[in-house]
Amino acid sequence: MTANIAILGASGYTGAELVRLIATHPSMRITALSADRKAGMEMAEVFPFLRHLTLPRLQKIDEIDFSGIDLCFCALPHATTQAVVSKLPRDLKIVDLSADFRLRDAAEYEKWYGQPHTAPDLQKEAVYGLTEFYRDDIRSGRLIAGTGCNAATGQYALRPLIAAGVIDLDDILIDLKAGVSGAGRSLKENLLHAELSGGTHSYSAGGKHRHLGEFDQEFSKIAGRPVLVQFTPHLLPMNRGILATTYVRGDPATVHATLAQAYADEPFLRVLPFGALPSTRDIAGSNFCHIGVIGDRIAGRAVVIAVLDNLTKGSSGQAIQNANLMLGIEETAGLMLAPVFP
Amino acid sequence: MTANIAILGASGYTGAELVRLIATHPSMRITALSADRKAGMEMAEVFPFLRHLTLPRLQKIDEIDFSGIDLCFCALPHATTQAVVSKLPRDLKIVDLSADFRLRDAAEYEKWYGQPHTAPDLQKEAVYGLTEFYRDDIRSGRLIAGTGCNAATGQYALRPLIAAGVIDLDDILIDLKAGVSGAGRSLKENLLHAELSGGTHSYSAGGKHRHLGEFDQEFSKIAGRPVLVQFTPHLLPMNRGILATTYVRGDPATVHATLAQAYADEPFLRVLPFGALPSTRDIAGSNFCHIGVIGDRIAGRAVVIAVLDNLTKGSSGQAIQNANLMLGIEETAGLMLAPVFP
Amino acid sequence: MTANIAILGASGYTGAELVRLIATHPSMRITALSADRKAGMEMAEVFPFLRHLTLPRLQKIDEIDFSGIDLCFCALPHATTQAVVSKLPRDLKIVDLSADFRLRDAAEYEKWYGQPHTAPDLQKEAVYGLTEFYRDDIRSGRLIAGTGCNAATGQYALRPLIAAGVIDLDDILIDLKAGVSGAGRSLKENLLHAELSGGTHSYSAGGKHRHLGEFDQEFSKIAGRPVLVQFTPHLLPMNRGILATTYVRGDPATVHATLAQAYADEPFLRVLPFGALPSTRDIAGSNFCHIGVIGDRIAGRAVVIAVLDNLTKGSSGQAIQNANLMLGIEETAGLMLAPVFP
Amino acid sequence: MTANIAILGASGYTGAELVRLIATHPSMRITALSADRKAGMEMAEVFPFLRHLTLPRLQKIDEIDFSGIDLCFCALPHATTQAVVSKLPRDLKIVDLSADFRLRDAAEYEKWYGQPHTAPDLQKEAVYGLTEFYRDDIRSGRLIAGTGCNAATGQYALRPLIAAGVIDLDDILIDLKAGVSGAGRSLKENLLHAELSGGTHSYSAGGKHRHLGEFDQEFSKIAGRPVLVQFTPHLLPMNRGILATTYVRGDPATVHATLAQAYADEPFLRVLPFGALPSTRDIAGSNFCHIGVIGDRIAGRAVVIAVLDNLTKGSSGQAIQNANLMLGIEETAGLMLAPVFP
Repeated sequence: MTANIAILGASGYTGAELVRLIATHPSMRITALSADRKAGMEMAEVFPFLRHLTLPRLQKIDEIDFSGIDLCFCALPHATTQAVVSKLPRDLKIVDLSADFRLRDAAEYEKWYGQPHTAPDLQKEAVYGLTEFYRDDIRSGRLIAGTGCNAATGQYALRPLIAAGVIDLDDILIDLKAGVSGAGRSLKENLLHAELSGGTHSYSAGGKHRHLGEFDQEFSKIAGRPVLVQFTPHLLPMNRGILATTYVRGDPATVHATLAQAYADEPFLRVLPFGALPSTRDIAGSNFCHIGVIGDRIAGRAVVIAVLDNLTKGSSGQAIQNANLMLGIEETAGLMLAPVFP
Repeated sequence: MTANIAILGASGYTGAELVRLIATHPSMRITALSADRKAGMEMAEVFPFLRHLTLPRLQKIDEIDFSGIDLCFCALPHATTQAVVSKLPRDLKIVDLSADFRLRDAAEYEKWYGQPHTAPDLQKEAVYGLTEFYRDDIRSGRLIAGTGCNAATGQYALRPLIAAGVIDLDDILIDLKAGVSGAGRSLKENLLHAELSGGTHSYSAGGKHRHLGEFDQEFSKIAGRPVLVQFTPHLLPMNRGILATTYVRGDPATVHATLAQAYADEPFLRVLPFGALPSTRDIAGSNFCHIGVIGDRIAGRAVVIAVLDNLTKGSSGQAIQNANLMLGIEETAGLMLAPVFP
Repeated sequence: MTANIAILGASGYTGAELVRLIATHPSMRITALSADRKAGMEMAEVFPFLRHLTLPRLQKIDEIDFSGIDLCFCALPHATTQAVVSKLPRDLKIVDLSADFRLRDAAEYEKWYGQPHTAPDLQKEAVYGLTEFYRDDIRSGRLIAGTGCNAATGQYALRPLIAAGVIDLDDILIDLKAGVSGAGRSLKENLLHAELSGGTHSYSAGGKHRHLGEFDQEFSKIAGRPVLVQFTPHLLPMNRGILATTYVRGDPATVHATLAQAYADEPFLRVLPFGALPSTRDIAGSNFCHIGVIGDRIAGRAVVIAVLDNLTKGSSGQAIQNANLMLGIEETAGLMLAPVFP
Repeated sequence: MTANIAILGASGYTGAELVRLIATHPSMRITALSADRKAGMEMAEVFPFLRHLTLPRLQKIDEIDFSGIDLCFCALPHATTQAVVSKLPRDLKIVDLSADFRLRDAAEYEKWYGQPHTAPDLQKEAVYGLTEFYRDDIRSGRLIAGTGCNAATGQYALRPLIAAGVIDLDDILIDLKAGVSGAGRSLKENLLHAELSGGTHSYSAGGKHRHLGEFDQEFSKIAGRPVLVQFTPHLLPMNRGILATTYVRGDPATVHATLAQAYADEPFLRVLPFGALPSTRDIAGSNFCHIGVIGDRIAGRAVVIAVLDNLTKGSSGQAIQNANLMLGIEETAGLMLAPVFP
C-alpha cells in the first residue's frame, strides 16, 4: 500500500526536504503540492535540485482535492497555519511543521507568539510530535504538531535526565549553535552569505527564543513542577545542523547511563561512548541524533551535547517518522539514509 | 539476491561514499572493508557519520577472504593499486576507483603518471568506466576503471558533440571549478580550512592535469583523429561538486539539441532547457549530472556547462552504477537518492 | 592638509569599504554620510564593525551642506546616480562608484542598461576611472567614473597585451569567478547563505553581463578597431575576490614579458613569476592585484589569471586611489594595507 | 625613531599576522625573520599575500645578529620556545606569543602542559601580557608572555566582574566558539576544509583545555581565593574570531555597568549598549574586542558575550600593543586598522 501525500507550503526548505525524503520512501507518493505565491510553477523551477522527480504542479491550497489524500504535511508559516488547518477536512490526517499547535496552553501560546490562538480546539486536539516520547498518541492522533528544531535537540539531551531525577532541575543551561537553514528561505539582511559566512553571533538571547515555550511545557510536565531552563542560541556559518551544549548538575556517569539506557532501542538516537563528542557533520542530511556526555573537571557537573539536522530530525524527517506511525508503516521507512560527509 | 561486497581503501572519502551509498542499496551487502594503516579499527571510529551502520571491522587486504565476495571496489591510491589488483583472485569482479587503469596506452600512462605501468596486462583488460558510453563492455567486463571526476564532467559535456561532428575539434576549452573533496583526505597545507575557505585559485593549469590523459584518449578515439583540449582546473571553497564550463565553436541550438537527444533516455544525465544554467548545489550528494547550454553573443560559439558531484557521479556513484551492470542488477539501484539542498 | 570627504550611499558595501579605508587614511576626514532610507541612524547601527569610529550621522542627500566638502564619493545604485549627480554643485569633485558614467556612448549605455541616459553632458565629462591607464585625465578630472569590478580585473589582464599587439584580438575569452559581495547588500534569494554556500554556478552567461560594455569600449579604443571578447562570470561561495582566467592566443613568454614590463612601476599591480598562479586569498581586503601567466600545452596559447578584491581594488580602493590623484595626495596614501590572511 | 624588529617563527599564522600589522606600523621596521624549516626562502613564497612587502629573507635563529634588534617577537611552538628564549641575549626585549611563560607556577605549568618547565627563572621574570590589566608591568618588563587567545576573550568578559565582586565566583561558565586559525597551520585531518566546513563540534570539553590554567591563575589572583570556571570550547567553520558566551550569576544591569565603567577609556575594548549582542564579523582583522551584556529571563543571571579576533587582539595585535608600551610608542600605534567586513 502506498499512501497519497499532500504537502502544503512546498516552496520552503522544510517542504523541499519532505519531497527529498519522500522521493525514496517505499510507501509514500506525493499527490499534491501547494505554494500559494508560486502556484502554477513546477517544483523544479522553485527547487532545481528536485528536477529528476516527476511531481504534481504547485497549486493553491483551495485547488487541492483532498478526497484521495491519506495524509497531509503542512509546512506553512506560523500563524497562517491555524486558519488553513481549520478549513481542512476534519478526518484528514495532518502532520504540521509550524509552531501553531506545539503549545497546549492558550496563554502560553499568546505569550510566546504575541497573539491569541484562533483555533483553540485544534490546539487541544494536537499531539506534540517528539516521536520517541509520544509514539502511542501519535499513532492514534489526527493532528500532530511537529516540534521546534532547537526544542527537539534540547529535549533529546535532557528529557530522560529530568524524568529520572538525576539532575538539578533549577540549574539547566542550553547553549545552542544552529545552522542557517532553520531560519528558512526568508529574505533578511542577516541571512545573506556576505553577512553570515565566516562569523558567528548570538540571537534571541536572554530567554526570548520562542522554543522556550516548548521547553517549559515539556520539562515541567515531566518533572511535575515548573522547570525553567536558560537558553542561548547562536547562529553559525553552516547550512544544516544544530549542536546543543547542555550544562547540568549531576553525576556524569549516571547522566550518561541514563541516556544510554533510555535510548538503547531507538533507531535514530545514538548515545556515544562516555567522553566522545559529537559533530554536526556526522548527522547532516540524515534523521540521526548523536548525543555525547562528558564530566566537567568540577565534580557534579556534566555536559550533554546533542546534534541533529534541523531540516531532517528537527523537522521534516521527524514529520515523516510521525506520518509513518500514523499510517501504520514501519517507523524508520524512508529515513535510514546515511548522513552526507564530507 | 544480495551481492557480497568488499571495499579496499575504505578510509578515504571515496571509500566512505561507497559505504554511504551501499547502506541503502537494496541488493548489496558489505562483507569486507580494508584500510591498511587503520586495520583493526571500526569504521565508526574513522568516519563517525557511519556510526548507525553495522559494518565489518577494517582489515588489512591480505586478511580478507575473497572466496565469498561477489564484487570488490578498489579505492586505493594511484600506483599502489596496480600491485594490489595484480594479486587479487583472477575471477573477482573489480571496480577500481584509482587512475591506474584508465589509460589504454602504456606510454600515455607513463607520460601522465611519471612511471611505467607494472601491470600492463590488466591495463589492457580494463574497461573504461564512463557508464553511459561503455555499458555493454562494462556488463561483460571483469575489471572496470573508474574515470577521473573532472574527466567525467568534461566528457558528459563534450562526447556527443564530438561524435556528432557539430563542433570544431581544434578549439575546445574546459575551464573547470572543483570542490576540495576531490583532493581526498590528504594532509596538505593548501587543503586546510584556513587556507582554502573564502578564496579560489587555479591549479595544474597550462595542460598539466592528469585527467587530460583521459580527455586525449577518449576524444581522439571518438573523433578518429587526435583531439587536444585546453583544460584549466580551479579549486573552490566547497566540499562537493564540479562545474565544467566548456567553450566550443558550433551552432548553440545544434549543440543543445545534440546533447538533449543523446541523453534523452539517461536516468542520471539531465540536459536543462536551452539557456538555463546549472548549479553544483542542485546535484550535491547525488548521482545526477545537469548540463546547460547557452549561445554566446558572438555567433557560432556555444557554452556547455556540466555539473556533478565528484564523490558520487564522478567517483563512487559511478562505481556502483557500473557494479550494478556487472552484477545484473537494475542500473539505477541504490542511486536514486535526491541531492541534498540546502 | 586634510580633505573633507562626503560619501553618498554609505549603507551599502562599497560605502562601508570607503569608510573602512578612509579610517586610516592620513589625509582624508569624513564630513558627511548619506543613506536615504537609513537617514538619522548612526553608521555603527548600520555597520557595527565601524563602531570604533567617530562618524557623522547618516543624512538624506539634500540635507548635506556641500560648501566645505573637498571631494564626494558617490556609492549609489545605478540609474538613480545620474539624477543625484546632476543636482550636486558643479565644481564639486566627484568619484562615482556606480555604472552610470562608465560608458562614453549614449547608445551603448542604453543597450546595456535598458534605458536612455538622463545626463548625457555628465556622461561626456566623466573620466573612466581605471587609474593606471587614465592618471592624467583623472588628476585634472572633476567627475570620475569608477569601473566595474569585473571589468577592472579583465582589463588588468588584457590591456597591455592588446596595446602591444601580442595577442589575437578575435579570440579572447574571460572566464571569471566572483565573490558574492559584488552583488551588494540586496535581498535576493540566491544571495542567501543557505543558497550560496558550498556551491557554484554561472550567471549572465552568453554575453549578457553589463561589464561587457566596458570591455567593448576600452578594448576597441586601445586596438583602434572593434574587439569583442567572450565573457562568462561565475558566482563563488566567497565574500571578497575576483579571479579572471583569461585565455588568449599569443606567445606565453611574450605575454608575460609584456605585462611585467607594463606594470613594473605600478605599486598595486604585481605580475608573478612566469608559471606562478595567483589566489584571491592573497589580495583579500587590499588594493593589490596579482597577475599570473602560464603557457598552455597547446603552443601559441597563454592563460593570464588576474585576482583582485572587488570591494577594494575593484571599487572603493580604486575610488580612493583616484581621489588621491584628484586631491594632489600621494597616490598610494591610505591604500598600502596588507591583505588579510587567513 | 623606528624600532628594529625581529620575528622568530615567521612561517606560522601569528608570525604572518605580525608582519601584516607591522607593514603599516609607523614606528616599527622588520629587520630579521626566522623560520627554521623554511630558512632561505622569501616570505612571499611562504605567504604570497605579503608579496608587496620588502622583507628580509627567512633565516635560522642562530643566523640572526641580534645586536641591532630593539625588540623580538617570538612566535614559536610551545615548549621549544623555552629553549630558544633561554639563549637569546639577556637584555633583548621579547614579546612571546607561545604558552611557555603564561603560567607563574611551575607545578601548574607541568599540570597543563605535561612536562616540567626548563627555564623556571624566565617563567618567573615574565609578565602576563593582557595589556589592559598589566600596563605598568609591561612597560617596564623585558619578557612579556602573550596570553592564550581564548583566555584573553574570557578574561575581557569577566575580570572586572570578579574584581568588583558583582558575580558569584562559584558559578561561572564559559561556552566558547572559536575559528580555526587558532589551531595554527598544522596538518591535522580535522583541520581540512572538507572536514571542517559546514559543521561544528566541541573539543577539549570537560575542563581539559590548557587555557584553563590561565583562567585559574588570573581569576584566583583577582579574587584572592581559588576560582574555578567551567569552560567548553567549540570549533566553528570560520577562520578568524572567537565568541565567548559567559554565564554568570549577578544583577545584569550591575554587570553591564561594571564592564562599561572598567573599559570606558580603553581604545580597543568596546562595551555595547545593554542588550546588544556582538558578532565576530564586526571585529575580524582588527584589534578590537566587543562585549555585550544581556539579562536572562531568570532573575539574577546575566550573559556576557565577548568577541575578538584570535590572530589580532587574541595574539599578534596584543603582542604589538605590548611592544608599543615596551618601546615607549603610542599604545595604539599601527593597531587602529578597521575590521574587514564583509
